[in-house]
Amino acid sequence: MNIAENQHVIFEKGEKAPVDYFTGTAWVKLLVPNDPTLNCQIGNVVFEPGARNNWHTHPGGQILIVTEGVGYYQEKGKPMQEIRKGDVVTIPPDVEHWHGASPDSKFTHIAVNTNTQNGLVVWLERVTDEEYYSFR
Amino acid sequence: MNIAENQHVIFEKGEKAPVDYFTGTAWVKLLVPNDPTLNCQIGNVVFEPGARNNWHTHPGGQILIVTEGVGYYQEKGKPMQEIRKGDVVTIPPDVEHWHGASPDSKFTHIAVNTNTQNGLVVWLERVTDEEYYSFR
Repeated sequence: MNIAENQHVIFEKGEKAPVDYFTGTAWVKLLVPNDPTLNCQIGNVVFEPGARNNWHTHPGGQILIVTEGVGYYQEKGKPMQEIRKGDVVTIPPDVEHWHGASPDSKFTHIAVNTNTQNGLVVWLERVTDEEYYSFR
Repeated sequence: MNIAENQHVIFEKGEKAPVDYFTGTAWVKLLVPNDPTLNCQIGNVVFEPGARNNWHTHPGGQILIVTEGVGYYQEKGKPMQEIRKGDVVTIPPDVEHWHGASPDSKFTHIAVNTNTQNGLVVWLERVTDEEYYSFR
């Protein structure tokens, strides 16, 4: 990444996201480790174009704050939604969903995990190409 | 604000911050209204140079994510800390503190209020000019 590209980036990219739970290339920078007093964990996630995470749930819920690019969010049984820089998504506890970049745009969000005393994440099956490319 | 200045801004400025609890000019954009399931409220705060909030506490704690500029954070009885774009501050419940811009820089942070079932904020006295300009 050159300097011109990087100058408005807020956080370092962090570690490569685990291949078992992500399709394509994504990066996770932990901003706040799970805090047993605040009951909160926060990370920044950068998705390269086409990258997305598996279907999953959060026992305590989650909030996504989109800071860059264009991506997708989908809850099981509902249409995919396009989400963009400045959008905020609130995800209730135990709702199955996935998120990631759109095919042609990098996508960055801050992920706020709430009520972490109830658990962080339950990973499920991969989002197939058929599912991912069904956006209309 | 011209387009060149605005192009990397993530959120609209929102409403002017309440004069009773802020010194100088600041703007608050509510991103997530207090959510009784997630026990979380999130806002984006833009401080003009020199602006700061009053001393205050959060009964449920708070996390600040700095997205722009240079500012200050201080807990009662401790030195002022300079905080910058990319810094994250975790504030335990009931710890008296204030935050705001440095005198010469605009300053923007996302404020994540945690455990909001315990309350949001208790406002206290103003941060005096003597306190504010004591940074070394």
